[in-house]
Amino acid sequence: MRTSHNLLNTVKEIPADAVVISHQLMLRAGLIRKLAAGLYTWLPLGLRVLRKVEKITREEMEKVGGLEVLMPALQPAELWQETGRWEKYGPELARLKDRHDRDFCLGPTHEEIITDLARNELKSYKQLPIIYYQIQTKFRDEIRPRFGVMRSREFIMKDAYSFHLDQASLQDTYDAMHEAYTTIFNRFGLKFRAVVADSGSIGGAISHEFHVLADSGEDAIAFSSASTYAANIEKAEALMPTGERPSAIHALTLIDTPQQHSIEELSAFLSIAPKQCLKTLIVKGEQDGSVVALLLRGDHELNTIKAEKIAGVASPLTFANDGEVMRACQCKPGSIGPVGLAITIIADRSVLLMSDFVCGANQDGQHYQNVNWGRDLPVPLHTEDLRTVVTGDPSPDGQGSLTIARGIEVGHIFQLGSKYSGAMKAGIVNEAGKYQTMLMGCYGIGVSRVVAAAIEQNHDERGIIWPTALAPFQVALCPMNMHKSDRLKDSAEQLYHTLLAAGIEVLFDDRKVRAGFMFADMELIGIPHCIIMGDRGLDANTVEYKARTSKEAIDIPLTDIVRFLQEKLAI
Amino acid sequence: MRTSHNLLNTVKEIPADAVVISHQLMLRAGLIRKLAAGLYTWLPLGLRVLRKVEKITREEMEKVGGLEVLMPALQPAELWQETGRWEKYGPELARLKDRHDRDFCLGPTHEEIITDLARNELKSYKQLPIIYYQIQTKFRDEIRPRFGVMRSREFIMKDAYSFHLDQASLQDTYDAMHEAYTTIFNRFGLKFRAVVADSGSIGGAISHEFHVLADSGEDAIAFSSASTYAANIEKAEALMPTGERPSAIHALTLIDTPQQHSIEELSAFLSIAPKQCLKTLIVKGEQDGSVVALLLRGDHELNTIKAEKIAGVASPLTFANDGEVMRACQCKPGSIGPVGLAITIIADRSVLLMSDFVCGANQDGQHYQNVNWGRDLPVPLHTEDLRTVVTGDPSPDGQGSLTIARGIEVGHIFQLGSKYSGAMKAGIVNEAGKYQTMLMGCYGIGVSRVVAAAIEQNHDERGIIWPTALAPFQVALCPMNMHKSDRLKDSAEQLYHTLLAAGIEVLFDDRKVRAGFMFADMELIGIPHCIIMGDRGLDANTVEYKARTSKEAIDIPLTDIVRFLQEKLAI
Repeated sequence: MRTSHNLLNTVKEIPADAVVISHQLMLRAGLIRKLAAGLYTWLPLGLRVLRKVEKITREEMEKVGGLEVLMPALQPAELWQETGRWEKYGPELARLKDRHDRDFCLGPTHEEIITDLARNELKSYKQLPIIYYQIQTKFRDEIRPRFGVMRSREFIMKDAYSFHLDQASLQDTYDAMHEAYTTIFNRFGLKFRAVVADSGSIGGAISHEFHVLADSGEDAIAFSSASTYAANIEKAEALMPTGERPSAIHALTLIDTPQQHSIEELSAFLSIAPKQCLKTLIVKGEQDGSVVALLLRGDHELNTIKAEKIAGVASPLTFANDGEVMRACQCKPGSIGPVGLAITIIADRSVLLMSDFVCGANQDGQHYQNVNWGRDLPVPLHTEDLRTVVTGDPSPDGQGSLTIARGIEVGHIFQLGSKYSGAMKAGIVNEAGKYQTMLMGCYGIGVSRVVAAAIEQNHDERGIIWPTALAPFQVALCPMNMHKSDRLKDSAEQLYHTLLAAGIEVLFDDRKVRAGFMFADMELIGIPHCIIMGDRGLDANTVEYKARTSKEAIDIPLTDIVRFLQEKLAI
Repeated sequence: MRTSHNLLNTVKEIPADAVVISHQLMLRAGLIRKLAAGLYTWLPLGLRVLRKVEKITREEMEKVGGLEVLMPALQPAELWQETGRWEKYGPELARLKDRHDRDFCLGPTHEEIITDLARNELKSYKQLPIIYYQIQTKFRDEIRPRFGVMRSREFIMKDAYSFHLDQASLQDTYDAMHEAYTTIFNRFGLKFRAVVADSGSIGGAISHEFHVLADSGEDAIAFSSASTYAANIEKAEALMPTGERPSAIHALTLIDTPQQHSIEELSAFLSIAPKQCLKTLIVKGEQDGSVVALLLRGDHELNTIKAEKIAGVASPLTFANDGEVMRACQCKPGSIGPVGLAITIIADRSVLLMSDFVCGANQDGQHYQNVNWGRDLPVPLHTEDLRTVVTGDPSPDGQGSLTIARGIEVGHIFQLGSKYSGAMKAGIVNEAGKYQTMLMGCYGIGVSRVVAAAIEQNHDERGIIWPTALAPFQVALCPMNMHKSDRLKDSAEQLYHTLLAAGIEVLFDDRKVRAGFMFADMELIGIPHCIIMGDRGLDANTVEYKARTSKEAIDIPLTDIVRFLQEKLAI
């Protein structure tokens, strides 16, 4: 296509509410425009990217045997009442009444609708397993829409739903979907991780999130350097350490530590590493009025999700107040320690390898130095995984060590089991002729979100750097000052048509603009491959090639350029 | 694709609310399923048809330089308030409030949104003309959703909007769009007419509707046998007749016509053709209490839209009540006539050629026979086009005569002028450096409606007959009793892959079902070309070919079948 035909809508100004880089670049590059809070119009360039995400997703859904359907966005309340979600779903569900005063919602997801379809259409076990999917507009009345299309009120999802006779079949399809998602994100050309996840409000037991890695990601992910293991950092297990506890060397000492309350203050005051300090946290126990002491190495963070799952600890996790601490430890928080402590103690596993450590002395302004298990206090009987993993921890699957990165959730797969099919009586007649509730899986990809996530992962100070598979155009054709040279104009037109004929998606920048302006636009909109044509090059029968990721252009003979690009594009 | 993979959802039962054939067949063939009143899920087979409509539409929009965008379905009330439509649009506009109590609607159309985009994005006359389009889900809260996807509450539209500096540019784009629409409907393979239309509530002056012809259509269309002239029957002009009025032959006679009130009764009673009778209708005049007599040939129908536009006639057209008729004519309706009538008389043009006609005598139970203009009463001074055209009338453009057919409106193009751009201050700086309001056109195609309209036009008692361009699959491959013959199975599989490789969209019916059942399904879902394979044919190295439109199958050598189909499909 030609830029002269109003295709580009690049701008310089960034509105103040665009705080994340993808939102800024999507506006600057003219991919989207804001209509109202959380509502965006996709401009031609952005829509091209969106369609590529859709196309790759659709192709892989077809490969796993998905049947594409298209369900209404408008959903009757009655179905949501069957599953109880009409009442449970919060104000994020956009609700409305039709002219006959009947209740509807704008679907944020389609479990109820597909389950209704399945219970009507599927009669026999012979039809199972079956996968339905759609690529469709969804609605969520976000309290604070933000980050552009990343957290908007209207967005495009691919949602798939599978129905099964038994758990083995559900697991098979779940695994196939996991693989399809892996293929999809690989085809997008994005760095991503599939992480073990909590399934949240959609329900069910087993689920994985697919995260595009980006420094700006909302979620922290721990993944193995040597395997496919990855988990939301809250979920990753910190294994029992394998080494031996070093022997005690120094004698126990009581020291004054005036005004030193936090581990940071204490370690700085004593000129020791935080990991030499023991952190003691007093939280409420499960029984009314009871408290529990949690022990962690000074450099580790308490993982509240893990802690509140432990028997004896109150859920949600609640820290004891000063009065409760005083009653239990006879001191204020900041000087607590396990030596001589008369309440239940639960120690993080890492604590077991500590020796000659520092901890509070249960007297305000005092700590013990060179504390050792078995000598100064008993080795903790009750150890748990209490902490959030850190970079370098061994991977829970035993392969390699963990790296922590940030990610943007763009996909989520769930085993729903009978959560919806049970409530909605979606069953079939099995081989034995008996009615049986179907099991379900559901599988989502945030199609519009992928576009933003791709930018969060791939950009520089000059603009977007599209992976070729998602780029609105694969190649930019930039003739410099074409309007002053008929020869250049003719050659550029000819090359444009040659590239099109070779099946290359080329954007012909035929605007009457300065070369610098042209290059800046092409870099801003992130076209991965750029051909620069000039009169000087034509004298030598060459054009310049510049990758978006490179600063240097290289000369390529005009006669080689098609083959050169086809190799770059692997077509 | 293979039918065995849950692709078909054909059923025998038709729900009682499916009254039109397209609705019945879409349910029976498994193209759609009802979720709630006016809300349908598109099943895989239906979605394939929908996508073909979209694809052809998109390709032709690209050819006229349309820029594809995607606007939100959710639209803020503020923009609708700018044009006054928030108040004017009736209960068909689905309205809702977000969690912050702000007003939104679900767009039935996008004039406000695109005008807002244009006023923000377009700065200079150099950017004009510009055409934006989208293919998107629309909402209309129909009081009585019916006819399946033909009049549903959620549907897919292609809507395009153009912006212009002047009327000449608007007319150019309008003409190009008219041509693009013609190409689109031709490519669909549908019989259609572009008709001059009223522009209704969207506004503007010039507009055309595109109607798919079908006996079940809601609208009657008059079109020329010899030109492209077509108009909604209400709009088509009945020209002044060109012949001479025959001379009077018989003497005026007053006859008794007891209980003969209607033209049908009267003409039957007198054994004459209705066209020999004069129909006199008394309607209210523009001035309070006044009435007007309208004269029509007995076989013609009053066109109320034409009549109420005439000066002196009340609008909306209102018939006089019995008391008013009695005061004006001294008789009851059924015996009224123009002889000696002392009120304003407006005659339809055709009436001028009547001679020796019958009309009411303004005395209950009596009529005049052999009435003649100029002899028994004055030739009407005031003649108008009062009637609806009938088959055989001369075409208003002077070329050929009119045929009346019924149509389903599937497209509509408008010249909006400055209706929206004026209200929303959408202007640009023109060549002279001055601010100028842009002119607009808008162009819609009811994408989901096209699917239903195609079926209304193309079906028989066995099911749908798809035009090849819209068929979910071009070719059905039906091996008979394949599961009993390995040789047949191998040949069928081989042919299936050969056809796929040849770029033919083939549906392989690999279900373990009886041949009759298979054929019935393929005919119901309307696949245009069917290949039947059997063991007997294989002995002779032939397969059978049957067109959906034909009752007879023909033998084709197996080696020729690909070429044969490619010719049929013109690929």
